Amino acid sequence: MELMNLLRVPQRRVAPGSIPGTVLADPCAARPEIQVMAYDLEALDEFDLLEAKQASAHVGQKRTVWINVTGLGDANTIRELGEAFGIHGLALEDVVNTYQRPKIEEYRNHLFVVLRMLDTTDGSQSEQISFFLGDGHLLTFQENPDDCFESIRKRIRDKHGRIRHNGPDYLAYCLMDAIIDDFFPQVDVLGERLEELEEEVLRSPSVETLNEIHRTRHALLAMRRNISSTREVMNALLRDTGGKIEENTRVYLRDCYDHAIQLLDIIESQREIAAGLLDVYLSSVNNRMNEVMKVLTVIATLFIPLTFLVGVYGMNFDTQVSPYNMPELENPYGYPVLLAIMAVVIVAELGYFYYRGWIGRR
Amino acid sequence: MELMNLLRVPQRRVAPGSIPGTVLADPCAARPEIQVMAYDLEALDEFDLLEAKQASAHVGQKRTVWINVTGLGDANTIRELGEAFGIHGLALEDVVNTYQRPKIEEYRNHLFVVLRMLDTTDGSQSEQISFFLGDGHLLTFQENPDDCFESIRKRIRDKHGRIRHNGPDYLAYCLMDAIIDDFFPQVDVLGERLEELEEEVLRSPSVETLNEIHRTRHALLAMRRNISSTREVMNALLRDTGGKIEENTRVYLRDCYDHAIQLLDIIESQREIAAGLLDVYLSSVNNRMNEVMKVLTVIATLFIPLTFLVGVYGMNFDTQVSPYNMPELENPYGYPVLLAIMAVVIVAELGYFYYRGWIGRR
Amino acid sequence: MELMNLLRVPQRRVAPGSIPGTVLADPCAARPEIQVMAYDLEALDEFDLLEAKQASAHVGQKRTVWINVTGLGDANTIRELGEAFGIHGLALEDVVNTYQRPKIEEYRNHLFVVLRMLDTTDGSQSEQISFFLGDGHLLTFQENPDDCFESIRKRIRDKHGRIRHNGPDYLAYCLMDAIIDDFFPQVDVLGERLEELEEEVLRSPSVETLNEIHRTRHALLAMRRNISSTREVMNALLRDTGGKIEENTRVYLRDCYDHAIQLLDIIESQREIAAGLLDVYLSSVNNRMNEVMKVLTVIATLFIPLTFLVGVYGMNFDTQVSPYNMPELENPYGYPVLLAIMAVVIVAELGYFYYRGWIGRR
Amino acid sequence: MELMNLLRVPQRRVAPGSIPGTVLADPCAARPEIQVMAYDLEALDEFDLLEAKQASAHVGQKRTVWINVTGLGDANTIRELGEAFGIHGLALEDVVNTYQRPKIEEYRNHLFVVLRMLDTTDGSQSEQISFFLGDGHLLTFQENPDDCFESIRKRIRDKHGRIRHNGPDYLAYCLMDAIIDDFFPQVDVLGERLEELEEEVLRSPSVETLNEIHRTRHALLAMRRNISSTREVMNALLRDTGGKIEENTRVYLRDCYDHAIQLLDIIESQREIAAGLLDVYLSSVNNRMNEVMKVLTVIATLFIPLTFLVGVYGMNFDTQVSPYNMPELENPYGYPVLLAIMAVVIVAELGYFYYRGWIGRR
Amino acid sequence: MELMNLLRVPQRRVAPGSIPGTVLADPCAARPEIQVMAYDLEALDEFDLLEAKQASAHVGQKRTVWINVTGLGDANTIRELGEAFGIHGLALEDVVNTYQRPKIEEYRNHLFVVLRMLDTTDGSQSEQISFFLGDGHLLTFQENPDDCFESIRKRIRDKHGRIRHNGPDYLAYCLMDAIIDDFFPQVDVLGERLEELEEEVLRSPSVETLNEIHRTRHALLAMRRNISSTREVMNALLRDTGGKIEENTRVYLRDCYDHAIQLLDIIESQREIAAGLLDVYLSSVNNRMNEVMKVLTVIATLFIPLTFLVGVYGMNFDTQVSPYNMPELENPYGYPVLLAIMAVVIVAELGYFYYRGWIGRR
Repeated sequence: MELMNLLRVPQRRVAPGSIPGTVLADPCAARPEIQVMAYDLEALDEFDLLEAKQASAHVGQKRTVWINVTGLGDANTIRELGEAFGIHGLALEDVVNTYQRPKIEEYRNHLFVVLRMLDTTDGSQSEQISFFLGDGHLLTFQENPDDCFESIRKRIRDKHGRIRHNGPDYLAYCLMDAIIDDFFPQVDVLGERLEELEEEVLRSPSVETLNEIHRTRHALLAMRRNISSTREVMNALLRDTGGKIEENTRVYLRDCYDHAIQLLDIIESQREIAAGLLDVYLSSVNNRMNEVMKVLTVIATLFIPLTFLVGVYGMNFDTQVSPYNMPELENPYGYPVLLAIMAVVIVAELGYFYYRGWIGRR
Repeated sequence: MELMNLLRVPQRRVAPGSIPGTVLADPCAARPEIQVMAYDLEALDEFDLLEAKQASAHVGQKRTVWINVTGLGDANTIRELGEAFGIHGLALEDVVNTYQRPKIEEYRNHLFVVLRMLDTTDGSQSEQISFFLGDGHLLTFQENPDDCFESIRKRIRDKHGRIRHNGPDYLAYCLMDAIIDDFFPQVDVLGERLEELEEEVLRSPSVETLNEIHRTRHALLAMRRNISSTREVMNALLRDTGGKIEENTRVYLRDCYDHAIQLLDIIESQREIAAGLLDVYLSSVNNRMNEVMKVLTVIATLFIPLTFLVGVYGMNFDTQVSPYNMPELENPYGYPVLLAIMAVVIVAELGYFYYRGWIGRR
Repeated sequence: MELMNLLRVPQRRVAPGSIPGTVLADPCAARPEIQVMAYDLEALDEFDLLEAKQASAHVGQKRTVWINVTGLGDANTIRELGEAFGIHGLALEDVVNTYQRPKIEEYRNHLFVVLRMLDTTDGSQSEQISFFLGDGHLLTFQENPDDCFESIRKRIRDKHGRIRHNGPDYLAYCLMDAIIDDFFPQVDVLGERLEELEEEVLRSPSVETLNEIHRTRHALLAMRRNISSTREVMNALLRDTGGKIEENTRVYLRDCYDHAIQLLDIIESQREIAAGLLDVYLSSVNNRMNEVMKVLTVIATLFIPLTFLVGVYGMNFDTQVSPYNMPELENPYGYPVLLAIMAVVIVAELGYFYYRGWIGRR
Repeated sequence: MELMNLLRVPQRRVAPGSIPGTVLADPCAARPEIQVMAYDLEALDEFDLLEAKQASAHVGQKRTVWINVTGLGDANTIRELGEAFGIHGLALEDVVNTYQRPKIEEYRNHLFVVLRMLDTTDGSQSEQISFFLGDGHLLTFQENPDDCFESIRKRIRDKHGRIRHNGPDYLAYCLMDAIIDDFFPQVDVLGERLEELEEEVLRSPSVETLNEIHRTRHALLAMRRNISSTREVMNALLRDTGGKIEENTRVYLRDCYDHAIQLLDIIESQREIAAGLLDVYLSSVNNRMNEVMKVLTVIATLFIPLTFLVGVYGMNFDTQVSPYNMPELENPYGYPVLLAIMAVVIVAELGYFYYRGWIGRR
Repeated sequence: MELMNLLRVPQRRVAPGSIPGTVLADPCAARPEIQVMAYDLEALDEFDLLEAKQASAHVGQKRTVWINVTGLGDANTIRELGEAFGIHGLALEDVVNTYQRPKIEEYRNHLFVVLRMLDTTDGSQSEQISFFLGDGHLLTFQENPDDCFESIRKRIRDKHGRIRHNGPDYLAYCLMDAIIDDFFPQVDVLGERLEELEEEVLRSPSVETLNEIHRTRHALLAMRRNISSTREVMNALLRDTGGKIEENTRVYLRDCYDHAIQLLDIIESQREIAAGLLDVYLSSVNNRMNEVMKVLTVIATLFIPLTFLVGVYGMNFDTQVSPYNMPELENPYGYPVLLAIMAVVIVAELGYFYYRGWIGRR
């Protein structure tokens, strides 16, 4: 659940006090596979790379080279790639330490960007994608083979759109755009959940409802943190003056930034609505308690006085001893008169309750 | 309802990962109709344009040309217009993807502005209006034929006011001013609704009232998002240095900006009042529960002890066996004395309740 | 009430979509009267002006001219004044449209400032004062003849203080200072109301108290909006670089700005206190409910078990049939023993209640 | 109480609309006494000044002159001092109008600083200290003779520390540092009060507790306003470019600024804790109500059914008339069987209550 | 407990008004021990220094000297060290006054940084670490011998990593990084505590739970203050232009800064979750009260009317006197009919309760 991501500090594989820039791979993670797509307007070279050390050899001849590494389970491969491309140790450490928030850092050779992609299987987990944007090449690291990049690979293969006309900065934009657009369905799911909760809260609020509201708020909190950082990354990319981003890619990044703001906007609204739901839940519970109390009060105040009354005539005072001792019992009309009195009491009380709005139409 | 706009992410016609700048028309939307008004101080040319490709041919001779497209149901027409005027693909995509928040973007040829107009029929829906302000021409896209621009068309036709003296920037200002001013009646309706709710909350709060407060808060939330973005657009227009806005139009835009701030100001107040209403609602419900409990307590504490008392004398201890066994029953004054005791108990309790303020005047 | 000002959008006399800069007078407003005070260190000319068109003729000879217009009920007069002094149409529109928030706008000839003066009669209404500060003259518009400027007129007539030594900027400062200082007594009234409410909330909270807290919060909200905008106006005047404000007047404006901050400071505190009052109110209501429930519980738990007990001995089991059938009834000490048992039960329960702190001292 | 300071606008002695810069002394205030300390590294001159007009004569010969005025009850003296040192009328007005918030203002001859010193007697009142820092002299005004400056006077007399080496800016720093450090004990008192309240809220919350929490929050609010403004003053002094503060005094002022931040930090924490206390109080009251209700429910649900049961056998149906009429009464085992049934009901109910956790261990 | 740190102002050993820069050691603190590590790429000199005065003699020959002082119990030693390295008195005062918040101050010879290290024993206390970063040397002061620096000492001794290649700025970075990384396990503990509390709140909320939530919020508050200040220190170090930090150390400090932000991010989420827990707690208590009330209402409304009914037939009206007096008692089917009526009443009530959802499946 997102909840756990929020509450627990991820298990850092690098112990406090260890040497900065240490690359320690998670032994449970998948073994890295390196896919290379090298293309220009005319040609496309697509192959799997077996030797990490040779990765940089494919870069350089006026074409765009995309090296995508899937799986972070082998520290050696990653260190070799790092050396091949001259990546700073601290950045490499962040690549394998897959609990970074979205961020951007400028190094000598690369623009280093971390984003978090929603895990498409069930939307409750997020996966870290690291980008190294260098001259003529883009190096990306992802944790699992599942990704939202298939349509972009297809566009490269089919020469579809402008992607083959442009450099690695445009490619990076395309990937980031895919990651951000992938949030929309997930946000939609949360919106639907809130709508259902809203109905439930008014119809039949239970502790489970409350729990669900609570969980949805946690999910929104996690989502907001993620997208808010993503937006800052996009903003920094827009203002980038390191020369890694070309001018006409910037227009596209602006669109991307706009989408991030749109997402944040929706999430902020959803957060306000979720907070409002809590208020409604509390009042709803209060109202139900009110209903319960009204029924108790109506029944009790109707019958308690009557019970007293009939109790009076159940007393065993000896009517023989004295005429003062409950002469009503000997009276031929005692019983019907008492019944009439009780009927009057009931009608009066019901009238009062009706007037107070506790029973009847309202 | 506004609620749905808030909770659901609109159905984006462009799938995540598709090529940026794709223009896909909503097949359910109305077919586009193109109205042209070309005017200078002397002459006015008003006609419907049938061929989108020729739209740009009417621009250019020192006059102001307003091309208004109503209905976004045909991707071809919109793409042709885009080509005729040299509009960037991303901007065109935003035009047909009618769930943009109000925003401003600068492109090479145009200042691109998106605003949202309240749907005048019932005020709960908003419609996207896209402006392309270029040299000598203004291109606008609206979803439905209903709009709040009729008075401006009339002013153009009647040479009323300064509109015929000025260029397309002044025309754009007039349209935006109309959109913003159109919010005031709607905000007024919300204010009246809040006043009614305030009375209702104090007089007879029900779950329906709570629900209504909740809905009004959602509406205010949606309204604020819309106007807040609109204000930012206006602010950006005021600071525009692209040269599309002339100096003496800027004074008018400042007025427009001032109206947006005024709206925001009122909405913020209404939001605080709506939040306060919730507090009052909760206390009101609490107070009513209190009333109910007081009645129960008064009746129960009055009669429960008395019922015990009469129960005592209903016991069947055999007075023959021993003089200790309930001699009162044999006493000639047993009954009247008991009645007197009960009267004293009742009076004492009523006095206590009165002293505590549970019954009587207050 | 301030409430209405907050909730309702004022009736704008200018319909949405009408020509910007339209001056439409409210037919119910008072007819304008124009008072002129023209003075320098030596001489003072004070007269009523009958012809608005000639107003500007009195300006110019090294003296300070204050033209004060009272009543906005005639559009013609106001338009003539506007033409005489070269006032922009949008500014004139704001003068008659008397629901502006405090603001400052710079025009070619004038610094245009709007402030809101508390209506001195009962403090719940505010009146719009418009200032046009030009070269050698100050033009002010007020809605009603009641104002807080009399002491300033007296100072001009009596050559009291520095006012006759200075130009129209110092005069404008004096008027603004009078408006801002006039808020202090009103804020004081709100403070006293809060103190009374505080006592009431702890002593005898009722729905009326809640309502009153609510209303006070609305009043504080309205007040804060007004003064907060006023402070921004003062700040803008301090930074004014249009040359309309002389250097040594600026020191005085800083004092004025300081008063506005002081007001805001007090109002913010009052707002926090009012919000706290709501919390206290809610707990107070809760406490009273608690008291009610305690009484009910004490009485009910005391007597319900006893009633059961005496009910047992009211049963009509035939003691003749079997020795198992309620032999106690035949026992000579049955009754006193039962009484003793009941006494023990009562004492035990009272002890328990005392131990729980439900009865007794606390 | 601090409360009153918060809610009431202080009685301003200067009426709205009066001439700016009017110095009106409070007739109830103490008569001014003027103490002068003039010192350099070698010599110290300490005397009481009787003639305010001659005050400035002592300034000038390369030494530092501290003129301290105690008591503001005579407008003449203060006006004379103002004239002697060339103090602006508006600043003088602020000196006698002793309800200024801490602030700093730059005038031609002086840096004018206002701080508020906690009244050392009981810590609930604050006193205004005004500083005029000029060339070679420091002029201070305080309301009462009690102050926290005695240790500084002693340091001057004893040539202790660096104070005799430095100019009036260092002296001003020493005084301000003493004022700020004097807040720490007071903040400590509030912290202890909060700790006590925390215990009380969990042990035995009463309306008095709530009231006390409320009052502590007011005190914290007042404290925060005071220190927050003080911090801004310190910050402005640090950035002062008027040349009144020497470079090596600035290091000391930074320390002073740091203390103000430390105070604010503690107060913010205390405010959050006080707000949390309110939540705990409310839940605590709720919990106690819950306890009360549980007792009522347990007792009532135990005995009400049993009372019904024994009521049944108290009915007077004539067993002679028909064998259907309550044959149990004639049965030899009727009574013991009924007792057994009642015992079973009680045990079952107790079991249910235990299972629900309403009775027993927890 | 952290609580006490929050509520109480630490006992300042320097009295208000004393001479700034006074170094007064806490007599209860440990006696200072001075460890020196002097190293360059080739050699390492490690020894304990006995004479504080000679400390500065070891600095200077192109190597990095780390002087670490453990224990602040002797003012003399500290003053001698201060003189040896030319440390400003105010900074020395802050070293012994061990309640500083994390801060950075620039002095002529040193960059003075204060951080707070979590006491590793139980994590509820924090210890002040003071850094003086000068040319070629780093001087650190810690309160207790326990620290998180052992791994760094080992790295220096083993020539592990880049630490022997770099100067004192890199050493300072390593120490700060160790301090910040040490927070992660502690934050993790708080996260786990929150998860436990979350379960507890939904399963079995008690006053103890509430108390625990309260305490966790206090701990988070204290943590946030600490880390928030630490982040500001890191940010200031990144922007440092005093030349004490070398360019390639800055990349590492950026990483450190990133960790601080990550911590803050997690703590903010935890704070929101803790605040949400309180809401859930309150609703949970409310729900339980609701359950209690429902049981009471169901039992009471079932049996109170029946008790009345059987009470009626317990009355002693004399059936001999008149045929109107309770003829049912004489009727052969009186009793069974009454039983049937009572059964009908019970079934009807149970049906109603089921329909209202108070009993049964729901």
